[in-house]
Amino acid sequence: MRSDHPAVTVIGLGSMGSALATTLLKRGHGTTVWNRSADKARPLADRGARLAATPEEAIAASPLIIACVLDYEVLHAVLDPVAGSLAGRVLVNLSSGSPEQADEAAAWARSHGADYLDGAIMTTPPGVGSPEMMFLYSGSGAAFEAHRPTLGALGDPLYLGADPGLASLYDAALLGLMWSTMTGWLHGTALVGAEKTPATSFTPVAIRWLTAVSGFLATYAPQVDAGHYPGDDATIDVQLATIDHLLHAAAARGIDNALPELLKSAMERAKAAGHGSDSYASVIEVLKNPAVRT
Amino acid sequence: MRSDHPAVTVIGLGSMGSALATTLLKRGHGTTVWNRSADKARPLADRGARLAATPEEAIAASPLIIACVLDYEVLHAVLDPVAGSLAGRVLVNLSSGSPEQADEAAAWARSHGADYLDGAIMTTPPGVGSPEMMFLYSGSGAAFEAHRPTLGALGDPLYLGADPGLASLYDAALLGLMWSTMTGWLHGTALVGAEKTPATSFTPVAIRWLTAVSGFLATYAPQVDAGHYPGDDATIDVQLATIDHLLHAAAARGIDNALPELLKSAMERAKAAGHGSDSYASVIEVLKNPAVRT
Repeated sequence: MRSDHPAVTVIGLGSMGSALATTLLKRGHGTTVWNRSADKARPLADRGARLAATPEEAIAASPLIIACVLDYEVLHAVLDPVAGSLAGRVLVNLSSGSPEQADEAAAWARSHGADYLDGAIMTTPPGVGSPEMMFLYSGSGAAFEAHRPTLGALGDPLYLGADPGLASLYDAALLGLMWSTMTGWLHGTALVGAEKTPATSFTPVAIRWLTAVSGFLATYAPQVDAGHYPGDDATIDVQLATIDHLLHAAAARGIDNALPELLKSAMERAKAAGHGSDSYASVIEVLKNPAVRT
Repeated sequence: MRSDHPAVTVIGLGSMGSALATTLLKRGHGTTVWNRSADKARPLADRGARLAATPEEAIAASPLIIACVLDYEVLHAVLDPVAGSLAGRVLVNLSSGSPEQADEAAAWARSHGADYLDGAIMTTPPGVGSPEMMFLYSGSGAAFEAHRPTLGALGDPLYLGADPGLASLYDAALLGLMWSTMTGWLHGTALVGAEKTPATSFTPVAIRWLTAVSGFLATYAPQVDAGHYPGDDATIDVQLATIDHLLHAAAARGIDNALPELLKSAMERAKAAGHGSDSYASVIEVLKNPAVRT
C-alpha cells in the first residue's frame, strides 16, 4: 500500500464488486474485502486483498467502505447488525436501488455517525477502471471531495449534488435511454437484416448516426428548459409523415412494430396538443402530462 | 465554375434542396436550379445559381441531376413529362420514400436511359456541407464513383450497394433509432426534471452515456450476426430487475411510462423465449418473430 493511496474496504464481491476491488488493488490501494460466501474472495486474496472474517472487521479496516451488493435489502441485512462500527467512516453505496431507498440509507448512515455517498456505476464490470466511464455520486459533498482520488481510480467520478437520491434517479433515467436506444437499434438491425445486411455492417453507420443524434439532443436541451420548441430543423409534422415509411417497411418484413407505433403515437399526441410545427423536443410535454392523449 | 467542379442541377428548393444548392455553389459548382414556385429560387440566383425556366431546361444544363422534392408523387409529376431528356444523365434522388419506391424509380430511370442513385440525407439542412454528416447512396455503383467528388461536397457519401432500396431502408432504420433515442432521452429528462435538474445539466451526461452505449452496440452486433447472445456483461434477468426502479421512479413523478413498459415487455418476451441469462441483444429474436409473445 502506498501512503497516498488510502485503504479501502469493498463489501460485496459479485462480478461488479470484484471488478471494483481488483481495480483498487491494481492502483495500489490496500484493499480489504468481505463477501457473504467466502469463495468469491479467494481470487482477490491471490491478488493481495485482505480477507475480513466479518463485516465488522471489514468496516474497521478502512476509513472508506464501498458497498456493492444485490439491493438495499441485502445492504441492510449485512450492515444493520454492525451499524455502530460505521461511526466516523464514509459509506459509499454502489448497490442499485430507488432514489427513495438512497434517501433512507443516507438518513440511516447519518444516524450512526457515518458520512454517506450514493453512487451509480455507468458501465459493465469490464469497463471499471477506465477513465472514460462515468461513476455518478450524490449525497455528502465533503465525503466526495475527501475521497475523490480513490473514487477516480474506478472511473470518472461525477458529483450530482447533496440529495442522496440523485445518482439513482440519473441511473434510472440513463438506463431508460440505454434500453430505448438499444431497442431502436435492434429494430433497425432487424429491418436491414431482412434484406441481408449484417448487424456488423449496419452498426458502424448506426453508431456514427448516434453522434449526429447527440448533436440534436444538445440543440433540444435548451428548448426543453425554455418550454419553447422551435421546429427550425425538423417538425413533428414532417417526422409523422416519415415514420410511415418505417412502419410499412418493417411490417412488410414481418418485424414487430410495437416500438415505432408507440413513437408515432407520442408524436400524434404532441401534434394534437398543438406541437405539429414544433421540434421533436415538444414530445416531452405529453410525457410529462400523460393526460394529454388523443 | 471551376473545371474540376462539374455542373450540377438541383430540382426542388425546399429547405433541404436550398441547402444542397447553396452548398454546391459555395464549393464552386456551376449550379442550375428549378422549383415549382420560382420565388424559392431567387435567393439562390443572388448567390450565382442559374434559374431554369422548365424542368427540361434544368435537366439539359448538367450531367448530374439531384432531385429533392416532397415525395415520389411529386418526383414523378415533375420528371415524367420530361423523362426523355434524362437519357445519358445521372439522376440522384434524395427525396424521402420507401425502398419499393426507390426500386421502381430506378427501373423507370433506366427505361429512359438514365443512371439512377437513390440517397438519404442523414442530417438537417444546417448540417449539409459538413464532412461529418452521412449521405447514404444505393443503386448505380458507376454513377456513384463518377460523381463521388461532387457528392462529397454535400457530406460524407457512403455507398451501400447496388440495390436501389438500400438507402431508404437504412434511412428508415436510422430514423427509428433516432426517435427511440430521442424519446428515451426525453423520458429521462422528464424524470430528472421532476427533481429540478435542468435538461441542460442532464443532457451532457446523457450524451457521454450514449458513447458508452455505442460501445455496447459494437459488442452486440457480432452476437446478432451469430445468433448467439452470451450475457457476460449484463443479462436480461438483471436488467428486468432494474427496470422496475425506472418504472416506479417515473410513475411516482407522474410521467408517462408507455415507453419503459414496452421495453420491459420486450425483455419479458425475450426471457420467456429462453434468453433470461443472455445479453440484451437477444431481444432481436422477439422483434424478428412477433409471434413469440407471452
